[in-house]
Amino acid sequence: MKWPNINPLCIEAMEAATKRVNSLTKPLHSLGQLEKMAIRLAGITGHPFPEVSQKAVVVMCGDHGIAKAGVSAYPQEVTGLMIHNFVNGKAAINVLSHLAGANVHVVDVGSYLEEIPEVVIDKKVRFGTRNFAEEPAMTQSEVEQAIQVGIDMVSQLKKQGVQLLAVGEMGIGNTTVATALTAAFTGRPVEELVGRGTGLDDQSYQHKTDIIKQALALHQPDPEKPLQVLAQVGGLEVAAMAGAYIGAASAGMPVLVDGVISTVAAYVAVKLIPRVQDYLFASHQSVEPAHLVLLQALDLQPIIHADLCLGEASGAALAFPLIDAAVAIVREMATFADLGLPNPN
Amino acid sequence: MKWPNINPLCIEAMEAATKRVNSLTKPLHSLGQLEKMAIRLAGITGHPFPEVSQKAVVVMCGDHGIAKAGVSAYPQEVTGLMIHNFVNGKAAINVLSHLAGANVHVVDVGSYLEEIPEVVIDKKVRFGTRNFAEEPAMTQSEVEQAIQVGIDMVSQLKKQGVQLLAVGEMGIGNTTVATALTAAFTGRPVEELVGRGTGLDDQSYQHKTDIIKQALALHQPDPEKPLQVLAQVGGLEVAAMAGAYIGAASAGMPVLVDGVISTVAAYVAVKLIPRVQDYLFASHQSVEPAHLVLLQALDLQPIIHADLCLGEASGAALAFPLIDAAVAIVREMATFADLGLPNPN
Repeated sequence: MKWPNINPLCIEAMEAATKRVNSLTKPLHSLGQLEKMAIRLAGITGHPFPEVSQKAVVVMCGDHGIAKAGVSAYPQEVTGLMIHNFVNGKAAINVLSHLAGANVHVVDVGSYLEEIPEVVIDKKVRFGTRNFAEEPAMTQSEVEQAIQVGIDMVSQLKKQGVQLLAVGEMGIGNTTVATALTAAFTGRPVEELVGRGTGLDDQSYQHKTDIIKQALALHQPDPEKPLQVLAQVGGLEVAAMAGAYIGAASAGMPVLVDGVISTVAAYVAVKLIPRVQDYLFASHQSVEPAHLVLLQALDLQPIIHADLCLGEASGAALAFPLIDAAVAIVREMATFADLGLPNPN
Repeated sequence: MKWPNINPLCIEAMEAATKRVNSLTKPLHSLGQLEKMAIRLAGITGHPFPEVSQKAVVVMCGDHGIAKAGVSAYPQEVTGLMIHNFVNGKAAINVLSHLAGANVHVVDVGSYLEEIPEVVIDKKVRFGTRNFAEEPAMTQSEVEQAIQVGIDMVSQLKKQGVQLLAVGEMGIGNTTVATALTAAFTGRPVEELVGRGTGLDDQSYQHKTDIIKQALALHQPDPEKPLQVLAQVGGLEVAAMAGAYIGAASAGMPVLVDGVISTVAAYVAVKLIPRVQDYLFASHQSVEPAHLVLLQALDLQPIIHADLCLGEASGAALAFPLIDAAVAIVREMATFADLGLPNPN
């Protein structure tokens, strides 16, 4: 497939932002990650005083054939129920997005829902993936369609004035998908990566581990072929999220990554187009073991450590105020010069 | 001195909040620390749906005789300059508090400033502490006066309708004070606890370590006598912050702890009255090594990991939106019953 153009970060804006940050009335580097965020936001937007107050959340939804293998604590119907919950504005992501002043866009890229509520963006590629314990989850064409959904979605949001994005998902079974993908890409042992998802007991946990190991043995994924790996053991919402990151980078839009599923999609996007990495901001570090592995592989530092494991972009939405803070610091704090003092730094 | 009464957490409200949290449309425990915060806020306020939107920040300011020993990268006059910066509304804490909708109250409990700006609350106990490299920093009477400043301050804020507090400080030299206190209370080797404060080079870092070790050898602090330890190697703003935590607990008000200096004050408050601990919320984990030691000793889990080392309550103010999120989750999310579903938990 043909990838959109992605600009490198604007060095001039980053240098101007760095100079500004180092002139503020505080000890040098004392605002740590907030300073780094402010400088990178300048590089992304091309402005030393970036403006990213128009926020949006995209929740990509899909179902998984692998859920038939009993890898989740919840029945598959919950994907559709949660889509309805999003529509009613009463899920965690709605509440957290509302607090941060962000609109939520729910995209059905592959759920089993037959009748999609009107406000859900219907981009269904197919009704759930195939069961990757038995066959590839998707065809390469389906993977590419789902990626394009993400790219197009962010392109639309850009036209609507969105300046800052958070990307998350809903899909029963998708921590299994994310863990299989992480193992495929990083080569780390499955046992080190499997988590409890959304509440597995010991027996189901072992079962989930076995299922992933068997699937990897079946498909023999090649980590240097990310589209193929996605087709083998990925998910439609994962592919669509990868597209959303690519779309955000192409639109010059900073994007907050959420938990393990959102982050494995970011990993795929970076594998496809390395420059996407410059546009990504980690939000939180979840309790899923694969999440830390992925964050480290992407050299992303999560700011929030709150033992979250919900998905939906909930952790990413919690990080919106940190971005606001990084921007406000640069725009509003006094400099040493403002106080009539020499800059001690 | 006579301590105010502090109520235990309301078990009924916590049980009701726990039941609510476990009925929300999300996997059990998947909002991690946010859930624990919501439940403890219920216990503190006595309401399963706590209301803590009225926020205030208190910045306790003081100078330190030990600064004469050359333990800071900044001259002592910076304490006064920063007090003026707070008044002008252009310091980091002003910017971050404004974002969170919190008012900032600046209290001079012991700076060297001769003329205190009008909006600063003048509660000066003395012009800076004594140099604890040579003699006790304060008398026991001065310590008690400073603690009372904090208690009274929060009592006033309670009357003004404040429901949630963040506590921080300004005082050149006070990471040295905090480190000496941490070593005195925990018995941990000084070398493990000393940090770079706000930008020390290697030589000054070693000097800071030596100064603290010599002071501890001189005073031989007894960790079971917290008021005496404060008098020996403490600071006026540290004592006032300890008072603020006691005052918050007495007023039934949740309180966010900031960095290492704010946290050592919290440690002192808990040492004086163990029940204060129930009212404390950690905000961030700073780069100062003593901070993590103190947070662990207090069994507090910091949510934000952003390599901050500024003080002023800046990290605590960054955590206000997390408290808002914890409250909103409980108040606004749908329950399984709302969706007409049995509770799977």
